[in-house]
Amino acid sequence: MSGTSPEFAIGIDIGGTKIAAGLVDAQGRIVAAAKHQTPRHDPAAVEAAVAAVVAEVGHDAADAPVGVGAAGWMNAEGTEVLFSPHLAWRNEPLQERLERTLDRPVILTNDADAAAIAEHRFGAARGESHLVLLTLGTGIGGAIVINGELRRGRFGVAGEFGHQTIVPEGHRCACGNRGCWEQYASGNALGREGRTLVAAKSPVAYALREAVGDDPEQVTGALVTRLAAAGDPACRDLIVEMGGWLGLGLANLAAVLDPGTFVIGGGLGAASDELIATADARYRASLSGRGYRPYASVVRAQLGADAGLIGAADLARRSVRG
Amino acid sequence: MSGTSPEFAIGIDIGGTKIAAGLVDAQGRIVAAAKHQTPRHDPAAVEAAVAAVVAEVGHDAADAPVGVGAAGWMNAEGTEVLFSPHLAWRNEPLQERLERTLDRPVILTNDADAAAIAEHRFGAARGESHLVLLTLGTGIGGAIVINGELRRGRFGVAGEFGHQTIVPEGHRCACGNRGCWEQYASGNALGREGRTLVAAKSPVAYALREAVGDDPEQVTGALVTRLAAAGDPACRDLIVEMGGWLGLGLANLAAVLDPGTFVIGGGLGAASDELIATADARYRASLSGRGYRPYASVVRAQLGADAGLIGAADLARRSVRG
Repeated sequence: MSGTSPEFAIGIDIGGTKIAAGLVDAQGRIVAAAKHQTPRHDPAAVEAAVAAVVAEVGHDAADAPVGVGAAGWMNAEGTEVLFSPHLAWRNEPLQERLERTLDRPVILTNDADAAAIAEHRFGAARGESHLVLLTLGTGIGGAIVINGELRRGRFGVAGEFGHQTIVPEGHRCACGNRGCWEQYASGNALGREGRTLVAAKSPVAYALREAVGDDPEQVTGALVTRLAAAGDPACRDLIVEMGGWLGLGLANLAAVLDPGTFVIGGGLGAASDELIATADARYRASLSGRGYRPYASVVRAQLGADAGLIGAADLARRSVRG
Repeated sequence: MSGTSPEFAIGIDIGGTKIAAGLVDAQGRIVAAAKHQTPRHDPAAVEAAVAAVVAEVGHDAADAPVGVGAAGWMNAEGTEVLFSPHLAWRNEPLQERLERTLDRPVILTNDADAAAIAEHRFGAARGESHLVLLTLGTGIGGAIVINGELRRGRFGVAGEFGHQTIVPEGHRCACGNRGCWEQYASGNALGREGRTLVAAKSPVAYALREAVGDDPEQVTGALVTRLAAAGDPACRDLIVEMGGWLGLGLANLAAVLDPGTFVIGGGLGAASDELIATADARYRASLSGRGYRPYASVVRAQLGADAGLIGAADLARRSVRG
């Protein structure tokens, strides 16, 4: 372990709609940033877009390594993308391809893993050795940090919290199974419940119905969250119900992993204090062995949408020794 | 890390009914053994019994350290028993007390953690870096090994797999919650379902009814397992149903932890090939992302009732450097 890590690294967050890049220093600060639309279903175009944003933020940092975070599964070695929901990659040896294209060291990581490292090093979970991060958006992503290190499992795909069955024979999930946790605690769950109310012309959902002109198809989780924040009782009820499911799932994760802190990130996690408070209350009421063991803290993520690229950069920076 | 580990260590397994001790070599072989009844609800008597069995197996191994495994929660440092279901310990500084009594180095560990280390080093999961062990008996105990090391969580109480909620508003559990996994996949679950059949004077449960003289209170999980092994169709159905719940929970654990191997131990895990096979089939049919990721193996534990003391001894032996 001779030598020192470089001063800067480049973090890339490949999302379903955009590719965000940042030149990041050793304190997790973004000192230059760039964005590019994601060319979906075209791996070669994605590589070209990554090269473009790396050139844009990295021209003054020739020795900065690159950390790439993306939704999906990387293999345990971080060399291949096994599967990515937004992209056409299947068993793609992306690390090697990008190293050749960019002429810099490249590491690959799952976006939730990257966000967890960012929150662990610079955000809501500084000083916490055992942390579980949830990215709460349309679904639930997740990552596990134990003794300060990411734990990705034997094959690299740990942390798929959203696809635990929590209601046998429950709602069908896009994964093919029924009753996955993310069918009950996610933006998609809020949207589905909101649509049900609008389709039933529910008299309690007048604000939601008005907002979408009685068209259930226009209801989204984001709309429900927005109306709840504005005080609409029916949408607040949906948030509270969802927070309960979230908390029950946190108690399940605590039974397995016993973390010191749960960090809730993602667009929906950032959206509502009430959601976090409800989840925390249900978690505390549901934790098995409560009274005989300490509670984990349930906190909101601090680094927002930048967490992924900050964490990917940090992983890249620390993986390189001069 | 200078010096070498001692050649032998003493492993102790404190169970609800008996205390088992063994002098164990570096290959996990028991070279001397002793047993003592467990004096329940009397910590001082338990200490005296431990001292007696240590003296019995350790008289020719004065430098052998002692590893003590017990059901219950140890703190993360392994110095205190936070809670033990069979014993009267609450926040008991057992490590220090035993070191003074025995005049040997002592480590404390959870019994499932000890069994996991034994199976990892000498049993069913040799060579497996990422393993999840389940002890299947009246309930479900568990342990997590990642990169060859036990992971006990931030507060020392990880691996309580049996108390994940898998059926919201399901059967009441002794832990106070409802719908815990171990209410569906354990000896107690088998017993409850068998009792229901007998109480209903079910015509399909004639063998079970005959075995208990139509008295539901006489039905146990062990009896159901025995009759199933003898070919009784009603009891086999109960085993198959339970195996399905077991497999569903394994898929949930795989979503979170992504192990390479699940080791199923405990009295019930050892009892039935059909149970393991059914659980494996349901696990494979339920794993989220199946087809895009490798499956973990589901295997039966190899070391039986000795696993706890072998693992406790191994942990003690390797914790001491000469």
